Amino acid sequence: MYNRKTFTNDLIVAVIVAIMLVPQSLAYAQLAGLPPEVGLYASMAPLVLYAVFGTSRSLSVGPVAVTSLMTLAAVAPVAALGSPEYLAAAMALALLTGVILLILGFMKLGFLSNFMSFPVMSGLGTAVGIQIATSQLTPMLGIPTEGGTFLSQFISLVKNFRQINIYITAIGVPSFIFLLLVRKYLVNLLTRAGVGKGLAGILAKMGPVLAIIITILVVAGFELDRQGVKIVGEVPSGLPGIALPPFDLSLWSQLATPAILIAIVGYVASISVAQTLASKKRQHVDPNQELVALGVANIGASISGGFPVAGGFSRSIVNFEAGAETPAAGAFAAMGIALVTLFLTPLLYFLPSATLGATIMVAVLSMVNFKAVKITYAYSPTDGIAMALTIILTLTLGVIAGLIAGIGISLMMYLYRTSRPHIAIIGQVPGTQHFRNIDRHHVVTSSQIVSMRIDESLYFPNARFLEAKVSERVSAYPEANHFILNCSAVNSIDASGLESLKAINLRLKEGGITFHLSEVKGPVIDGLKKTQFYQEIKHRIHFTHYDAIYSINPDLAKQTMEETKFS
Amino acid sequence: MYNRKTFTNDLIVAVIVAIMLVPQSLAYAQLAGLPPEVGLYASMAPLVLYAVFGTSRSLSVGPVAVTSLMTLAAVAPVAALGSPEYLAAAMALALLTGVILLILGFMKLGFLSNFMSFPVMSGLGTAVGIQIATSQLTPMLGIPTEGGTFLSQFISLVKNFRQINIYITAIGVPSFIFLLLVRKYLVNLLTRAGVGKGLAGILAKMGPVLAIIITILVVAGFELDRQGVKIVGEVPSGLPGIALPPFDLSLWSQLATPAILIAIVGYVASISVAQTLASKKRQHVDPNQELVALGVANIGASISGGFPVAGGFSRSIVNFEAGAETPAAGAFAAMGIALVTLFLTPLLYFLPSATLGATIMVAVLSMVNFKAVKITYAYSPTDGIAMALTIILTLTLGVIAGLIAGIGISLMMYLYRTSRPHIAIIGQVPGTQHFRNIDRHHVVTSSQIVSMRIDESLYFPNARFLEAKVSERVSAYPEANHFILNCSAVNSIDASGLESLKAINLRLKEGGITFHLSEVKGPVIDGLKKTQFYQEIKHRIHFTHYDAIYSINPDLAKQTMEETKFS
Repeated sequence: MYNRKTFTNDLIVAVIVAIMLVPQSLAYAQLAGLPPEVGLYASMAPLVLYAVFGTSRSLSVGPVAVTSLMTLAAVAPVAALGSPEYLAAAMALALLTGVILLILGFMKLGFLSNFMSFPVMSGLGTAVGIQIATSQLTPMLGIPTEGGTFLSQFISLVKNFRQINIYITAIGVPSFIFLLLVRKYLVNLLTRAGVGKGLAGILAKMGPVLAIIITILVVAGFELDRQGVKIVGEVPSGLPGIALPPFDLSLWSQLATPAILIAIVGYVASISVAQTLASKKRQHVDPNQELVALGVANIGASISGGFPVAGGFSRSIVNFEAGAETPAAGAFAAMGIALVTLFLTPLLYFLPSATLGATIMVAVLSMVNFKAVKITYAYSPTDGIAMALTIILTLTLGVIAGLIAGIGISLMMYLYRTSRPHIAIIGQVPGTQHFRNIDRHHVVTSSQIVSMRIDESLYFPNARFLEAKVSERVSAYPEANHFILNCSAVNSIDASGLESLKAINLRLKEGGITFHLSEVKGPVIDGLKKTQFYQEIKHRIHFTHYDAIYSINPDLAKQTMEETKFS
Repeated sequence: MYNRKTFTNDLIVAVIVAIMLVPQSLAYAQLAGLPPEVGLYASMAPLVLYAVFGTSRSLSVGPVAVTSLMTLAAVAPVAALGSPEYLAAAMALALLTGVILLILGFMKLGFLSNFMSFPVMSGLGTAVGIQIATSQLTPMLGIPTEGGTFLSQFISLVKNFRQINIYITAIGVPSFIFLLLVRKYLVNLLTRAGVGKGLAGILAKMGPVLAIIITILVVAGFELDRQGVKIVGEVPSGLPGIALPPFDLSLWSQLATPAILIAIVGYVASISVAQTLASKKRQHVDPNQELVALGVANIGASISGGFPVAGGFSRSIVNFEAGAETPAAGAFAAMGIALVTLFLTPLLYFLPSATLGATIMVAVLSMVNFKAVKITYAYSPTDGIAMALTIILTLTLGVIAGLIAGIGISLMMYLYRTSRPHIAIIGQVPGTQHFRNIDRHHVVTSSQIVSMRIDESLYFPNARFLEAKVSERVSAYPEANHFILNCSAVNSIDASGLESLKAINLRLKEGGITFHLSEVKGPVIDGLKKTQFYQEIKHRIHFTHYDAIYSINPDLAKQTMEETKFS
């Protein structure tokens, strides 16, 4: 029930969130190569629209680091930085992103986000963190850089190092150190001083606001803008108008691939934040509805003059820690940003880009996680390799090409790993009806019967491997006239796996060997019953592996049981 | 041991195979848009080289339908049909295909061929069969057609139908009917007349030779070439020289994608034929060595003036049925073709293209299999949809684009299916230590403990689904303070799955719920032991699900056992 208490609570949360979001919005607009007011525009409509359509009570939707960098990577090749076409293209990109998310949501295609596996997302985060941090050295030190990839920026930073601006550096570096210290130690300091943990977290998040106020005063007081210190300058005050971006098919087709990637990356990041926060309060987030909400938020960002948005962790955690009780908190925060946009933009005139650069730098450093590569490699070498390659390719080829390559490599590594499942030749443990790997246990086998167990579902990545292994094993047992495939670990058989079973059955038959299946799970049998293959083999599908041996040679089966009993 | 008997045998096989291969080689060269002698060139070196490097004793490598059509699709956009550049590009394509196969073989990357799942390969076969059959109506009826896709050819066939040449049709259509009858009925007729089955099969394969001889005589006798009947004309006699195709980086980069696809399609087709024939004699084929052999064969085709080659079923079955005993049969067959190339090409002067068209038409019709779509759909709807879309896209977009789209869709359908595995909430079957699905069985549960079983390995396609399901279930049991995930069907956990388990563990903890695992398989535990996560959860990994319940609440577990015993 919404009463005065929750209203007051949401209002307080909104003020806090709005104060924190303003510097973030300005900084991410700068990162995306857009004028500062665009960052403010992109922070209003999405907040309200997500509040209406979203299922998480804590998620805050707006400009975030990854999607801002991807916007830069997508728009820079199609329009000149600073031109009206650049802004129009960024708006078109947000519209496309939104429409793609809506389609995915309506068609319940959220599963496509699975292409973005953990190694790809984690590798992308590290690479994007490094690239953004490098790119922010330009506003923080005043060194001009070129190119859209980490590599080209790094090279031009080294080459142009002598063009460093001492005044810019005198603002950028101290801001950075201040923000880093606030982020690292302020919460601890405040809690030790007796401040509640939630409030301490929020106060620490106010660091950027303080840095902005101080540096604005310094630049204005010493007239540092005359010393080459880049400032935000005049920000148009007033709320954005509502307008569709221009309809331009050739532009849209160039932006389609980046829009798909931004949609999926933004969605994966948002849903993970939403689920993490929801579970703390045992709330549930609906993955398909989240696609719709994020889609509407992006369309809203587009038509109100903004650029692609997503749910961010640092902005949402404020919502959460400040104790947002209903989605209305988001709407109130949007109103707060609207008030800033209407009345306070003249105060931002002297805000130096160096401070915004420092804000971004501190925010993205936590995304860099090289240790994840080592840890992942130790657990699963193929996943570790996929992660390392995603990082390297994103840094050298740029974020869009690197991400596509990373997804491709991750799929290949997956295929590689699952294409060779564990396969064992099994034999009977004497005196029991159990069958185990002949390489690991003392078991009894017969030269007439080959028993093989595959520890994986039968599907296209391993279908041909199974065929090859069966043929290899059978050619090693020249006396065999029966082959039993133990399916106790087979959860499913797809059309490729079924074709392999049919080919194996046919080939064994032509080699004079009878093909049996044992321990096939219920749902798998149900599926097979729809096939012609089942009619051929149904009398050779056995409930247990012992039954299979017994059906071929009862004496053999019993003998193995008894021999050992009396020995 | 190679003695006079096996030598004589191989020699006889070689003569038969050579006679059969000549018309096939000429026809596939025509299909690929190349001069007839190129087909002969592509049939010599590959035969010898495969004999040296291959592991199948029956596989015959040379021009086949699919790769010939793909050659046309790859080379037509980069060079004018009939120009020297066209031939050079075809040779470069064979070289690239060969190098890619060699790399795949040396790096043991044969698993990449798994991308070509059964639905894609089967759909490709049907689409290619339809497209080739349509394209051969041009030489068989003399109707000019345009465009590289089925759709464009079909439209121009209808549009230009009035340009039909009655003389060409009078050769093409009867040849087609003759070849169809021979293929369908001759084996039966001959075996009924007392001819051995193997010999009958071989004689039936001689149909094209007979059709060629008759139509050459007809064209020469009635001077039909003056009536607009297209003939092969002068074929340069003599053996091909050895030369590398021109080094042209821009050409190579245009041919790279088709070369990768030709390499993989050719390999998949070859290995399947090789395995089928090998198993009949309980021989074994080494998949990685086959990549090398096919790679060397393609490089050989390239430098001897040919175009991409693969192992073909119809050519290999002759080898097999004629009883090739050693790879030397292939070398002898190559010598036979060399003799034809040296001395008999003048006899081919009057050979009409219509006859070659009819030969191809009969060969490819057996590739068309629409029933497979229906059967596959009935077994696995997602696989059936992937197959149908591969057919439609190949027919409308062309073979290269259609194949790429087919692979993409097949992967998406796979992700879709595996992204939502079967998940059940389970309870204890009264009086036992068994746990079953609460929706299907009469079981006992506790409001404090949620037990869930997932019937699939935990990997990236279903990692997020599991997270969502756990959160959904937990929010439905507000009193729960323990959650047990039963892993009896989990064969493996990849890095994405591990991340999900970590996220689930963390989120449940923050919601006040303890996370347990039960019935984790040995190899999966071995993997988990390398992780930090294992240290956190090891005391909550239970051997059986009953153990898990017992560890949480012994009274509850025992009570359920006893209550029912005495009731």
